[in-house]
Amino acid sequence: MLSKSRIKHINSLKIKKFRELHRQFIAEGSKLVTELMKNFYQISGIYATREWILENEPLITSGNFIVTEISASDLNRITALTTSSPVLAVVDIPGDSYAFSGFSEGLTLLLDDIKDPGNLGTIIRIADWFGIGQVICSETTVDLYNPKTVQATMGSIARIKVIYCDLVKTLSGIAPGKKIYGTFLDGENIYSQELDQTGVIIIGNESQGISHEVAQFVTDKLLIPGFHAPNNLTGSAESLNASIAAAIICSEFRRR
Amino acid sequence: MLSKSRIKHINSLKIKKFRELHRQFIAEGSKLVTELMKNFYQISGIYATREWILENEPLITSGNFIVTEISASDLNRITALTTSSPVLAVVDIPGDSYAFSGFSEGLTLLLDDIKDPGNLGTIIRIADWFGIGQVICSETTVDLYNPKTVQATMGSIARIKVIYCDLVKTLSGIAPGKKIYGTFLDGENIYSQELDQTGVIIIGNESQGISHEVAQFVTDKLLIPGFHAPNNLTGSAESLNASIAAAIICSEFRRR
Repeated sequence: MLSKSRIKHINSLKIKKFRELHRQFIAEGSKLVTELMKNFYQISGIYATREWILENEPLITSGNFIVTEISASDLNRITALTTSSPVLAVVDIPGDSYAFSGFSEGLTLLLDDIKDPGNLGTIIRIADWFGIGQVICSETTVDLYNPKTVQATMGSIARIKVIYCDLVKTLSGIAPGKKIYGTFLDGENIYSQELDQTGVIIIGNESQGISHEVAQFVTDKLLIPGFHAPNNLTGSAESLNASIAAAIICSEFRRR
Repeated sequence: MLSKSRIKHINSLKIKKFRELHRQFIAEGSKLVTELMKNFYQISGIYATREWILENEPLITSGNFIVTEISASDLNRITALTTSSPVLAVVDIPGDSYAFSGFSEGLTLLLDDIKDPGNLGTIIRIADWFGIGQVICSETTVDLYNPKTVQATMGSIARIKVIYCDLVKTLSGIAPGKKIYGTFLDGENIYSQELDQTGVIIIGNESQGISHEVAQFVTDKLLIPGFHAPNNLTGSAESLNASIAAAIICSEFRRR
Protein backbone atom coordinates (compact mmCIF):
# COMPACT_ATOMS: atom_id res chain seq x y z
CA MET A 1 0.00 0.00 0.00
CA LEU A 2 1.37 3.39 -0.98
CA SER A 3 0.92 6.47 1.17
CA LYS A 4 -0.63 9.56 -0.36
CA SER A 5 2.54 11.54 0.10
CA ARG A 6 4.59 8.83 -1.61
CA ILE A 7 2.20 8.82 -4.60
CA LYS A 8 2.43 12.59 -4.75
CA HIS A 9 6.23 12.52 -4.65
CA ILE A 10 6.52 9.93 -7.42
CA ASN A 11 4.05 11.76 -9.64
CA SER A 12 5.92 15.02 -9.11
CA LEU A 13 8.94 13.43 -10.82
CA LYS A 14 7.08 13.52 -14.13
CA ILE A 15 7.83 17.26 -14.12
CA LYS A 16 11.34 18.52 -14.83
CA LYS A 17 11.29 21.13 -12.05
CA PHE A 18 10.73 18.45 -9.41
CA ARG A 19 13.24 16.05 -10.96
CA GLU A 20 15.85 18.80 -10.58
CA LEU A 21 14.75 19.64 -7.06
CA HIS A 22 14.83 16.04 -5.82
CA ARG A 23 17.60 14.85 -8.19
CA GLN A 24 15.53 11.77 -9.00
CA PHE A 25 13.74 10.28 -12.00
CA ILE A 26 11.36 7.39 -12.60
CA ALA A 27 11.96 4.30 -14.70
CA GLU A 28 9.36 1.70 -15.63
CA GLY A 29 9.25 -1.71 -17.21
CA SER A 30 11.15 -4.82 -16.25
CA LYS A 31 13.85 -4.53 -18.92
CA LEU A 32 14.69 -0.94 -18.08
CA VAL A 33 14.58 -1.28 -14.29
CA THR A 34 16.74 -4.43 -14.22
CA GLU A 35 19.22 -2.75 -16.58
CA LEU A 36 19.57 0.18 -14.14
CA MET A 37 19.87 -2.22 -11.18
CA LYS A 38 22.70 -4.07 -12.91
CA ASN A 39 24.47 -0.86 -13.89
CA PHE A 40 24.90 0.43 -10.34
CA TYR A 41 22.40 3.24 -10.42
CA GLN A 42 21.37 4.42 -6.95
CA ILE A 43 17.77 3.36 -6.62
CA SER A 44 15.82 4.86 -3.74
CA GLY A 45 12.72 2.75 -4.21
CA ILE A 46 11.29 -0.04 -6.33
CA TYR A 47 7.52 -0.57 -6.47
CA ALA A 48 6.43 -3.84 -8.01
CA THR A 49 3.81 -6.55 -8.15
CA ARG A 50 4.32 -9.78 -6.22
CA GLU A 51 4.93 -11.69 -9.48
CA TRP A 52 7.70 -9.34 -10.55
CA ILE A 53 9.39 -9.59 -7.14
CA LEU A 54 9.31 -13.41 -7.23
CA GLU A 55 10.75 -13.49 -10.75
CA ASN A 56 13.58 -11.11 -9.89
CA GLU A 57 14.46 -12.36 -6.42
CA PRO A 58 18.14 -13.18 -7.16
CA LEU A 59 18.86 -9.74 -8.63
CA ILE A 60 17.02 -7.98 -5.78
CA THR A 61 18.94 -9.93 -3.12
CA SER A 62 22.32 -9.54 -4.80
CA GLY A 63 22.08 -5.74 -4.80
CA ASN A 64 20.22 -5.31 -1.49
CA PHE A 65 17.49 -3.39 -3.24
CA ILE A 66 14.49 -2.26 -1.23
CA VAL A 67 11.35 -3.34 -3.01
CA THR A 68 7.81 -2.46 -1.96
CA GLU A 69 5.12 -4.85 -3.09
CA ILE A 70 2.11 -2.95 -4.41
CA SER A 71 -1.01 -3.83 -6.37
CA ALA A 72 -1.51 -3.28 -10.09
CA SER A 73 -4.08 -0.62 -9.26
CA ASP A 74 -1.54 1.24 -7.10
CA LEU A 75 0.92 1.04 -10.00
CA ASN A 76 -1.74 2.69 -12.15
CA ARG A 77 -1.71 5.65 -9.77
CA ILE A 78 2.00 6.34 -10.25
CA THR A 79 2.74 5.23 -13.81
CA ALA A 80 3.73 7.67 -16.55
CA LEU A 81 2.76 5.12 -19.21
CA THR A 82 -0.64 4.59 -20.81
CA THR A 83 -0.65 1.03 -19.47
CA SER A 84 1.33 0.52 -16.29
CA SER A 85 4.08 -2.08 -16.16
CA PRO A 86 4.66 -4.45 -13.20
CA VAL A 87 7.55 -2.38 -11.84
CA LEU A 88 8.45 1.27 -11.30
CA ALA A 89 11.72 2.52 -9.80
CA VAL A 90 12.65 5.90 -8.33
CA VAL A 91 16.25 6.43 -9.35
CA ASP A 92 18.83 9.02 -8.29
CA ILE A 93 20.17 11.23 -11.07
CA PRO A 94 23.91 10.44 -11.14
CA GLY A 95 25.80 13.12 -9.19
CA ASP A 96 28.60 13.31 -11.68
CA SER A 97 26.35 14.52 -14.49
CA TYR A 98 28.67 14.69 -17.43
CA ALA A 99 30.32 17.94 -18.38
CA PHE A 100 31.95 18.30 -21.77
CA SER A 101 35.65 17.48 -21.65
CA GLY A 102 36.52 16.90 -25.27
CA PHE A 103 35.25 14.85 -28.18
CA SER A 104 35.60 11.08 -28.01
CA GLU A 105 38.02 9.35 -30.37
CA GLY A 106 35.25 7.62 -32.25
CA LEU A 107 31.97 8.93 -33.61
CA THR A 108 29.98 11.54 -31.68
CA LEU A 109 26.31 12.38 -32.09
CA LEU A 110 25.42 16.02 -31.54
CA LEU A 111 21.73 16.87 -31.10
CA ASP A 112 20.66 20.37 -32.03
CA ASP A 113 17.40 21.06 -30.20
CA ILE A 114 15.62 17.68 -30.26
CA LYS A 115 12.21 18.38 -28.71
CA ASP A 116 10.45 15.03 -28.64
CA PRO A 117 11.37 12.86 -25.63
CA GLY A 118 10.68 9.68 -27.61
CA ASN A 119 13.10 10.80 -30.31
CA LEU A 120 15.84 11.55 -27.77
CA GLY A 121 15.43 8.16 -26.11
CA THR A 122 15.36 6.35 -29.45
CA ILE A 123 18.51 8.15 -30.62
CA ILE A 124 20.32 7.07 -27.42
CA ARG A 125 19.26 3.48 -28.13
CA ILE A 126 20.56 3.82 -31.72
CA ALA A 127 23.88 5.20 -30.43
CA ASP A 128 24.18 2.19 -28.14
CA TRP A 129 23.44 -0.24 -31.00
CA PHE A 130 26.01 1.35 -33.28
CA GLY A 131 28.72 1.77 -30.65
CA ILE A 132 28.61 5.54 -30.38
CA GLY A 133 29.39 6.28 -26.74
CA GLN A 134 29.06 10.06 -26.75
CA VAL A 135 25.86 12.03 -27.32
CA ILE A 136 26.07 15.81 -26.94
CA CYS A 137 22.82 17.79 -26.63
CA SER A 138 22.11 21.48 -26.99
CA GLU A 139 20.80 23.05 -23.80
CA THR A 140 17.44 23.41 -25.56
CA THR A 141 17.14 19.65 -26.13
CA VAL A 142 14.42 17.89 -24.13
CA ASP A 143 15.41 16.55 -20.68
CA LEU A 144 17.19 13.19 -20.59
CA TYR A 145 15.23 12.19 -17.47
CA ASN A 146 11.79 12.85 -18.95
CA PRO A 147 9.92 9.55 -18.33
CA LYS A 148 9.25 9.12 -22.08
CA THR A 149 12.94 9.59 -22.89
CA VAL A 150 14.07 7.14 -20.22
CA GLN A 151 11.47 4.64 -21.46
CA ALA A 152 12.47 4.93 -25.12
CA THR A 153 16.15 4.25 -24.35
CA MET A 154 15.16 0.71 -23.24
CA GLY A 155 18.11 0.65 -20.86
CA SER A 156 20.69 2.23 -23.15
CA ILE A 157 20.60 5.29 -20.88
CA ALA A 158 22.85 3.27 -18.55
CA ARG A 159 25.62 2.95 -21.17
CA ILE A 160 25.71 6.19 -23.14
CA LYS A 161 27.35 9.42 -21.95
CA VAL A 162 24.83 12.19 -22.56
CA ILE A 163 26.18 15.71 -22.16
CA TYR A 164 24.21 18.98 -22.26
CA CYS A 165 26.17 22.06 -23.28
CA ASP A 166 26.34 25.15 -25.47
CA LEU A 167 26.87 23.72 -28.95
CA VAL A 168 28.37 26.84 -30.51
CA LYS A 169 30.95 27.14 -27.74
CA THR A 170 31.71 23.43 -27.94
CA LEU A 171 32.07 23.39 -31.72
CA SER A 172 34.21 26.55 -31.64
CA GLY A 173 36.87 24.66 -29.71
CA ILE A 174 36.97 21.65 -32.03
CA ALA A 175 40.32 20.44 -33.38
CA PRO A 176 41.01 21.60 -36.93
CA GLY A 177 40.52 18.86 -39.49
CA LYS A 178 37.79 17.07 -37.52
CA LYS A 179 34.90 16.21 -39.83
CA ILE A 180 31.48 17.56 -38.87
CA TYR A 181 28.53 16.05 -40.75
CA GLY A 182 24.95 17.24 -41.05
CA THR A 183 22.07 16.52 -43.43
CA PHE A 184 20.80 19.32 -45.68
CA LEU A 185 18.55 19.44 -48.72
CA ASP A 186 21.53 20.56 -50.81
CA GLY A 187 23.89 17.95 -49.35
CA GLU A 188 25.76 15.18 -51.15
CA ASN A 189 24.26 11.69 -51.45
CA ILE A 190 25.28 9.93 -48.21
CA TYR A 191 25.43 6.55 -49.93
CA SER A 192 28.38 7.57 -52.10
CA GLN A 193 30.32 9.86 -49.73
CA GLU A 194 33.44 9.04 -47.77
CA LEU A 195 32.56 9.01 -44.09
CA ASP A 196 35.18 9.49 -41.38
CA GLN A 197 34.76 7.14 -38.38
CA THR A 198 36.08 9.79 -35.99
CA GLY A 199 33.66 12.52 -37.02
CA VAL A 200 30.79 14.39 -35.42
CA ILE A 201 27.25 13.77 -36.74
CA ILE A 202 24.72 16.54 -36.13
CA ILE A 203 21.01 15.72 -35.92
CA GLY A 204 18.75 18.76 -36.24
CA ASN A 205 15.45 19.79 -34.70
CA GLU A 206 12.30 17.89 -35.77
CA SER A 207 10.78 20.74 -37.75
CA GLN A 208 13.57 23.29 -38.27
CA GLY A 209 16.50 20.97 -38.96
CA ILE A 210 20.00 22.18 -38.04
CA SER A 211 20.10 25.80 -36.79
CA HIS A 212 22.11 28.45 -38.64
CA GLU A 213 24.52 28.95 -35.74
CA VAL A 214 25.38 25.27 -35.69
CA ALA A 215 25.28 24.76 -39.47
CA GLN A 216 28.27 27.10 -39.94
CA PHE A 217 30.53 24.47 -38.35
CA VAL A 218 29.50 21.68 -40.73
CA THR A 219 32.37 20.55 -42.97
CA ASP A 220 30.46 17.92 -44.99
CA LYS A 221 26.83 18.34 -46.00
CA LEU A 222 25.01 15.07 -46.52
CA LEU A 223 21.63 14.12 -48.01
CA ILE A 224 19.57 10.94 -47.51
CA PRO A 225 18.02 10.71 -50.97
CA GLY A 226 14.34 9.81 -51.28
CA PHE A 227 13.22 7.30 -53.85
CA HIS A 228 10.40 7.72 -56.35
CA ALA A 229 8.89 4.44 -57.48
CA PRO A 230 7.57 4.66 -61.05
CA ASN A 231 4.11 3.15 -60.52
CA ASN A 232 2.89 4.80 -57.39
CA LEU A 233 2.40 8.11 -55.68
CA THR A 234 5.19 7.70 -53.16
CA GLY A 235 8.34 9.73 -52.82
CA SER A 236 6.59 12.91 -51.78
CA ALA A 237 7.38 12.67 -48.10
CA GLU A 238 9.14 15.93 -47.36
CA SER A 239 11.29 14.70 -44.55
CA LEU A 240 12.15 11.85 -42.26
CA ASN A 241 11.60 11.79 -38.51
CA ALA A 242 14.75 12.92 -36.63
CA SER A 243 15.42 9.53 -35.03
CA ILE A 244 14.83 7.74 -38.35
CA ALA A 245 17.37 10.01 -40.04
CA ALA A 246 19.82 9.37 -37.20
CA ALA A 247 19.41 5.60 -37.65
CA ILE A 248 20.04 5.71 -41.39
CA ILE A 249 23.09 7.94 -40.98
CA CYS A 250 24.62 5.79 -38.21
CA SER A 251 23.96 2.65 -40.25
CA GLU A 252 25.75 4.19 -43.25
CA PHE A 253 28.78 5.13 -41.13
CA ARG A 254 29.01 1.69 -39.57
CA ARG A 255 28.51 -0.52 -42.62
CA ARG A 256 31.73 0.74 -44.26
CA MET B 1 -18.18 27.87 -30.67
CA LEU B 2 -18.58 24.11 -30.59
CA SER B 3 -21.74 22.40 -29.38
CA LYS B 4 -21.48 19.78 -26.65
CA SER B 5 -22.69 17.06 -28.98
CA ARG B 6 -20.11 17.99 -31.61
CA ILE B 7 -17.31 17.85 -29.00
CA LYS B 8 -18.59 14.47 -27.87
CA HIS B 9 -18.71 13.15 -31.43
CA ILE B 10 -15.15 14.28 -32.24
CA ASN B 11 -13.76 12.86 -29.02
CA SER B 12 -15.49 9.54 -29.69
CA LEU B 13 -13.35 9.17 -32.83
CA LYS B 14 -10.29 8.63 -30.64
CA ILE B 15 -11.72 5.14 -30.01
CA LYS B 16 -11.60 2.50 -32.75
CA LYS B 17 -15.15 1.26 -32.15
CA PHE B 18 -16.57 4.70 -32.91
CA ARG B 19 -14.27 5.28 -35.89
CA GLU B 20 -15.67 2.08 -37.39
CA LEU B 21 -19.24 3.02 -36.52
CA HIS B 22 -19.04 6.51 -38.02
CA ARG B 23 -16.43 5.63 -40.70
CA GLN B 24 -14.50 8.78 -39.75
CA PHE B 25 -11.12 9.66 -38.25
CA ILE B 26 -9.45 12.81 -36.96
CA ALA B 27 -6.35 14.50 -38.33
CA GLU B 28 -4.48 17.38 -36.71
CA GLY B 29 -1.72 19.78 -37.61
CA SER B 30 -1.45 22.07 -40.59
CA LYS B 31 0.86 19.86 -42.65
CA LEU B 32 -1.29 16.77 -42.27
CA VAL B 33 -4.66 18.45 -42.78
CA THR B 34 -3.57 20.36 -45.89
CA GLU B 35 -2.07 17.16 -47.31
CA LEU B 36 -5.42 15.38 -46.92
CA MET B 37 -7.26 18.37 -48.41
CA LYS B 38 -5.01 18.28 -51.49
CA ASN B 39 -5.34 14.52 -51.87
CA PHE B 40 -9.11 14.53 -52.27
CA TYR B 41 -10.06 13.02 -48.94
CA GLN B 42 -13.70 13.62 -48.03
CA ILE B 43 -13.56 15.99 -45.09
CA SER B 44 -16.76 16.46 -43.13
CA GLY B 45 -15.50 19.26 -40.93
CA ILE B 46 -12.45 21.43 -40.33
CA TYR B 47 -12.07 23.25 -36.99
CA ALA B 48 -9.40 25.92 -36.93
CA THR B 49 -8.23 29.17 -35.43
CA ARG B 50 -8.78 32.43 -37.29
CA GLU B 51 -5.07 32.68 -38.09
CA TRP B 52 -4.99 29.25 -39.73
CA ILE B 53 -8.07 30.06 -41.80
CA LEU B 54 -6.55 33.32 -43.06
CA GLU B 55 -3.29 31.60 -43.96
CA ASN B 56 -5.01 28.81 -45.88
CA GLU B 57 -7.80 30.79 -47.58
CA PRO B 58 -6.82 29.84 -51.18
CA LEU B 59 -6.79 26.09 -50.47
CA ILE B 60 -10.06 26.30 -48.51
CA THR B 61 -11.79 28.18 -51.30
CA SER B 62 -10.46 25.99 -54.09
CA GLY B 63 -11.90 22.84 -52.53
CA ASN B 64 -15.09 24.34 -51.08
CA PHE B 65 -14.14 23.08 -47.66
CA ILE B 66 -16.39 23.95 -44.75
CA VAL B 67 -14.29 25.43 -41.97
CA THR B 68 -15.55 26.35 -38.50
CA GLU B 69 -13.56 29.02 -36.70
CA ILE B 70 -13.02 28.04 -33.06
CA SER B 71 -10.85 29.28 -30.22
CA ALA B 72 -7.60 27.67 -29.09
CA SER B 73 -9.34 26.66 -25.86
CA ASP B 74 -12.06 24.86 -27.85
CA LEU B 75 -9.32 23.08 -29.83
CA ASN B 76 -7.93 21.91 -26.51
CA ARG B 77 -11.26 20.21 -25.80
CA ILE B 78 -11.12 18.05 -28.95
CA THR B 79 -7.41 17.47 -29.58
CA ALA B 80 -5.81 14.03 -29.28
CA LEU B 81 -2.37 15.66 -28.95
CA THR B 82 -0.64 16.81 -25.77
CA THR B 83 -0.56 20.34 -27.17
CA SER B 84 -3.33 21.16 -29.59
CA SER B 85 -2.49 22.41 -33.08
CA PRO B 86 -4.35 25.26 -34.83
CA VAL B 87 -6.42 22.89 -36.96
CA LEU B 88 -8.31 19.61 -36.58
CA ALA B 89 -10.22 17.87 -39.37
CA VAL B 90 -12.86 15.15 -39.23
CA VAL B 91 -12.16 12.98 -42.26
CA ASP B 92 -14.16 10.16 -43.88
CA ILE B 93 -12.43 6.78 -43.98
CA PRO B 94 -12.12 6.03 -47.71
CA GLY B 95 -14.96 3.72 -48.77
CA ASP B 96 -12.75 1.64 -51.00
CA SER B 97 -10.59 0.44 -48.12
CA TYR B 98 -7.96 -1.64 -49.79
CA ALA B 99 -8.32 -5.39 -50.07
CA PHE B 100 -5.33 -7.49 -51.01
CA SER B 101 -5.19 -8.16 -54.73
CA GLY B 102 -1.62 -9.25 -55.28
CA PHE B 103 1.84 -8.04 -54.44
CA SER B 104 3.11 -4.89 -56.13
CA GLU B 105 5.91 -5.16 -58.68
CA GLY B 106 8.33 -3.29 -56.46
CA LEU B 107 9.15 -3.69 -52.79
CA THR B 108 6.40 -4.48 -50.28
CA LEU B 109 6.51 -3.97 -46.52
CA LEU B 110 4.66 -6.56 -44.47
CA LEU B 111 3.96 -5.73 -40.81
CA ASP B 112 3.52 -8.67 -38.46
CA ASP B 113 1.61 -7.37 -35.44
CA ILE B 114 2.97 -3.85 -34.98
CA LYS B 115 1.30 -2.61 -31.78
CA ASP B 116 2.55 0.94 -31.33
CA PRO B 117 0.56 3.52 -33.34
CA GLY B 118 3.60 5.81 -33.58
CA ASN B 119 5.65 2.98 -35.07
CA LEU B 120 2.98 2.22 -37.67
CA GLY B 121 2.72 5.86 -38.72
CA THR B 122 6.50 6.25 -38.85
CA ILE B 123 6.86 3.10 -40.98
CA ILE B 124 4.29 4.48 -43.46
CA ARG B 125 6.32 7.71 -43.65
CA ILE B 126 9.48 5.66 -44.26
CA ALA B 127 7.72 3.68 -47.02
CA ASP B 128 6.73 6.96 -48.66
CA TRP B 129 10.30 8.30 -48.48
CA PHE B 130 11.78 5.16 -49.99
CA GLY B 131 9.16 4.71 -52.71
CA ILE B 132 7.47 1.62 -51.30
CA GLY B 133 3.83 1.97 -52.24
CA GLN B 134 2.40 -1.14 -50.59
CA VAL B 135 2.23 -1.81 -46.86
CA ILE B 136 0.46 -5.00 -45.76
CA CYS B 137 -0.53 -5.35 -42.10
CA SER B 138 -1.58 -8.38 -40.09
CA GLU B 139 -5.11 -8.09 -38.75
CA THR B 140 -3.57 -7.75 -35.27
CA THR B 141 -1.61 -4.64 -36.25
CA VAL B 142 -2.77 -1.39 -34.61
CA ASP B 143 -5.47 0.60 -36.44
CA LEU B 144 -4.31 2.85 -39.29
CA TYR B 145 -6.78 5.54 -38.22
CA ASN B 146 -5.62 5.75 -34.61
CA PRO B 147 -4.93 9.49 -34.12
CA LYS B 148 -1.29 8.78 -33.17
CA THR B 149 -0.76 6.71 -36.31
CA VAL B 150 -2.33 9.32 -38.57
CA GLN B 151 -0.19 12.00 -36.89
CA ALA B 152 3.06 10.09 -37.25
CA THR B 153 2.54 9.55 -41.00
CA MET B 154 2.87 13.34 -41.45
CA GLY B 155 0.64 13.13 -44.53
CA SER B 156 2.16 10.00 -46.06
CA ILE B 157 -1.12 8.21 -45.21
CA ALA B 158 -2.54 9.91 -48.30
CA ARG B 159 -0.04 8.23 -50.63
CA ILE B 160 0.55 4.71 -49.32
CA LYS B 161 -1.77 1.76 -49.86
CA VAL B 162 -2.21 0.13 -46.46
CA ILE B 163 -3.92 -3.27 -46.54
CA TYR B 164 -5.04 -5.36 -43.54
CA CYS B 165 -5.29 -9.09 -44.14
CA ASP B 166 -4.44 -12.58 -42.91
CA LEU B 167 -0.68 -12.77 -43.44
CA VAL B 168 -0.43 -16.56 -43.53
CA LYS B 169 -3.13 -16.80 -46.19
CA THR B 170 -1.56 -13.97 -48.18
CA LEU B 171 1.95 -15.42 -48.03
CA SER B 172 0.65 -18.89 -48.91
CA GLY B 173 -0.44 -17.58 -52.29
CA ILE B 174 2.82 -15.87 -53.14
CA ALA B 175 4.47 -16.58 -56.50
CA PRO B 176 7.32 -19.09 -56.27
CA GLY B 177 10.74 -17.47 -56.43
CA LYS B 178 9.64 -14.22 -54.78
CA LYS B 179 12.13 -13.20 -52.10
CA ILE B 180 10.77 -12.74 -48.58
CA TYR B 181 13.12 -11.00 -46.14
CA GLY B 182 13.00 -10.78 -42.37
CA THR B 183 15.51 -9.93 -39.64
CA PHE B 184 16.56 -12.62 -37.17
CA LEU B 185 19.37 -12.96 -34.65
CA ASP B 186 20.85 -15.78 -36.75
CA GLY B 187 20.43 -13.91 -40.06
CA GLU B 188 23.11 -12.89 -42.56
CA ASN B 189 24.73 -9.46 -42.35
CA ILE B 190 22.38 -7.19 -44.32
CA TYR B 191 25.25 -4.96 -45.46
CA SER B 192 26.83 -7.71 -47.54
CA GLN B 193 23.74 -9.56 -48.83
CA GLU B 194 22.19 -9.35 -52.26
CA LEU B 195 18.81 -7.67 -51.93
CA ASP B 196 16.10 -8.11 -54.55
CA GLN B 197 14.21 -4.89 -55.38
CA THR B 198 10.97 -6.80 -55.96
CA GLY B 199 10.94 -8.59 -52.62
CA VAL B 200 8.79 -8.54 -49.51
CA ILE B 201 10.28 -7.15 -46.29
CA ILE B 202 8.70 -8.37 -43.04
CA ILE B 203 8.86 -6.19 -39.92
CA GLY B 204 8.04 -8.05 -36.71
CA ASN B 205 6.28 -7.15 -33.48
CA GLU B 206 8.02 -4.72 -31.09
CA SER B 207 8.80 -7.29 -28.42
CA GLN B 208 8.27 -10.70 -30.06
CA GLY B 209 9.76 -10.07 -33.48
CA ILE B 210 8.41 -12.09 -36.43
CA SER B 211 5.90 -14.77 -35.40
CA HIS B 212 6.57 -18.46 -36.09
CA GLU B 213 3.68 -18.77 -38.54
CA VAL B 214 5.00 -15.91 -40.64
CA ALA B 215 8.70 -16.79 -40.23
CA GLN B 216 8.23 -20.08 -42.11
CA PHE B 217 7.71 -18.10 -45.34
CA VAL B 218 10.98 -16.17 -45.06
CA THR B 219 13.44 -17.09 -47.82
CA ASP B 220 16.31 -14.83 -46.71
CA LYS B 221 17.14 -14.19 -43.06
CA LEU B 222 18.89 -10.87 -42.47
CA LEU B 223 20.65 -9.31 -39.48
CA ILE B 224 21.44 -5.65 -38.77
CA PRO B 225 24.75 -6.09 -36.96
CA GLY B 226 25.41 -4.04 -33.84
CA PHE B 227 28.76 -2.38 -33.34
CA HIS B 228 30.93 -2.56 -30.27
CA ALA B 229 33.25 0.41 -29.88
CA PRO B 230 36.49 -0.51 -28.10
CA ASN B 231 36.60 2.28 -25.52
CA ASN B 232 33.11 2.44 -24.20
CA LEU B 233 30.26 0.38 -22.79
CA THR B 234 28.07 0.56 -25.87
CA GLY B 235 26.94 -2.24 -28.11
CA SER B 236 24.82 -3.95 -25.51
CA ALA B 237 21.49 -2.74 -26.81
CA GLU B 238 19.55 -5.95 -27.38
CA SER B 239 17.39 -4.71 -30.18
CA LEU B 240 16.33 -1.78 -32.28
CA ASN B 241 12.89 -0.19 -32.27
CA ALA B 242 10.68 -1.68 -35.03
CA SER B 243 10.47 1.54 -37.06
CA ILE B 244 14.22 2.11 -36.70
CA ALA B 245 14.90 -1.39 -38.04
CA ALA B 246 12.46 -0.74 -40.91
CA ALA B 247 14.32 2.46 -41.80
CA ILE B 248 17.73 0.82 -41.85
CA ILE B 249 16.48 -2.10 -43.95
CA CYS B 250 14.70 0.16 -46.48
CA SER B 251 17.78 2.37 -46.72
CA GLU B 252 19.94 -0.70 -47.43
CA PHE B 253 17.60 -1.89 -50.20
CA ARG B 254 17.45 1.51 -51.84
CA ARG B 255 21.11 2.51 -51.77
CA ARG B 256 22.12 -0.34 -54.09
